Amino acid sequence: MRLRAIIRYDGTAFSGYQIQPNGRTVQEEIEKVLTKMHKGKPVRITASGRTDQGVHAVGQVIHFDTDLEIPNPNWVRALNTMLPADIEVVAVKEVPDDFHARFDVSEKEYRYYIMNGASRDIFRRHYVYHVPNQLNVQEMHEASQYFMGRHDFTSFCSANSNVKGDKIRTITDIGVEQQNEDIIIRVRGTGFLYNMVRIIVGTLIDVGTGKRATNEVSEIIAATDRATAGKTAPPQGLYLWEVDYEKKDDKNNDSLRAIY
Amino acid sequence: MRLRAIIRYDGTAFSGYQIQPNGRTVQEEIEKVLTKMHKGKPVRITASGRTDQGVHAVGQVIHFDTDLEIPNPNWVRALNTMLPADIEVVAVKEVPDDFHARFDVSEKEYRYYIMNGASRDIFRRHYVYHVPNQLNVQEMHEASQYFMGRHDFTSFCSANSNVKGDKIRTITDIGVEQQNEDIIIRVRGTGFLYNMVRIIVGTLIDVGTGKRATNEVSEIIAATDRATAGKTAPPQGLYLWEVDYEKKDDKNNDSLRAIY
Repeated sequence: MRLRAIIRYDGTAFSGYQIQPNGRTVQEEIEKVLTKMHKGKPVRITASGRTDQGVHAVGQVIHFDTDLEIPNPNWVRALNTMLPADIEVVAVKEVPDDFHARFDVSEKEYRYYIMNGASRDIFRRHYVYHVPNQLNVQEMHEASQYFMGRHDFTSFCSANSNVKGDKIRTITDIGVEQQNEDIIIRVRGTGFLYNMVRIIVGTLIDVGTGKRATNEVSEIIAATDRATAGKTAPPQGLYLWEVDYEKKDDKNNDSLRAIY
Repeated sequence: MRLRAIIRYDGTAFSGYQIQPNGRTVQEEIEKVLTKMHKGKPVRITASGRTDQGVHAVGQVIHFDTDLEIPNPNWVRALNTMLPADIEVVAVKEVPDDFHARFDVSEKEYRYYIMNGASRDIFRRHYVYHVPNQLNVQEMHEASQYFMGRHDFTSFCSANSNVKGDKIRTITDIGVEQQNEDIIIRVRGTGFLYNMVRIIVGTLIDVGTGKRATNEVSEIIAATDRATAGKTAPPQGLYLWEVDYEKKDDKNNDSLRAIY
């Protein structure tokens, strides 16, 4: 039986999602708990994609196979009891055996939180990126609209990336808005390159400070050169917000939207 | 020259304010930085009082003596550059040589944050106490009013306390209010016993869940017996909010209110 789970995690104390030889990872913590529940029989999980060190998730999706007969709400409770305090399982449901958390993704949404203002907030230092200089939200939003649609995002892909194939991706929705002292950048797309959202954010911050004009974004996209774009914004402001699946699903997509 | 500083800290990664042989403390981190600034000459700081492991401060006050000639705004900048990310200096000012951060306190305010609702928020787990059962804020506020004024607070003092003298203290202001999904308990007084605020909060939570009637609070106070009061609420919801001084001060108390 294949199960799909929506999970949240606070990325602060993790070396990222994916298992690695050194450092605590989200994947390892979850697999440890599942393996314990299966009396030592190793259980592997597959996520919609990985997230980097310090990046958070409120709607990450994973799948795994099990032969345990546990009702879904009890799965949530059992996992949350055993998982560390910085990982939370929001929902578990049965899916067809050919459901795949990574291959079947139709869209993903990321959100990036900037705290904009002279004074920082030490209690949020792991959860927002503090930018002291005033940002022009309207200009940032305008600039963000150049990202809409299908483009070669080479300029917005980390030079360290080992992407196979092209760097053409499609952004289906993007916007910048103010919410109290926070500026929130929403980016939704069918696929993302390594560090793509954080480089988009870094570039939009340059627009917000006035360092770049809004229409420079189209030139940067056209340049297909990482050096032309802005800095990679730091990880702590980034949240994997939601993962959507259209295929092989029972159309009850509601359960995938992490209520947050 | 004596300086007074208002400091904030995120208590999560500290074994409390006060220096101890094992564990990282706020006092030690600040003294290390000051000693470095004084080229190795040890500098001692004195706070308005200590806070326990996991307890936060947005308006803790300290004093120390220095012979360095640095303008006050530069003190703030220099300290913040050298201090770790979970301590922040908000303001520094010169005070008379006989000012004492502990002995001269006239009032202190603590605030306790409860996040009330079925779902927890893993991103706030170090900053609020999550109570899933719905609390009756009106009843909690009503019950809190029994604490106003001068009482023997023996029932609200940790049994581990080694307080010398009596346990009579004066609460000058107290209230419970809802703010979005948070319930905030404000307690202001001229002095506090060990764990006093957290036991008051634990008792008010019992009122909020209906386990105790509002007027039981006056019986608990009268009992002068720790066993009659509620549990000690956990540290992560507690903030030392503000410390007031009336004596030996230039009456410019504004600078003492941490803008938060």
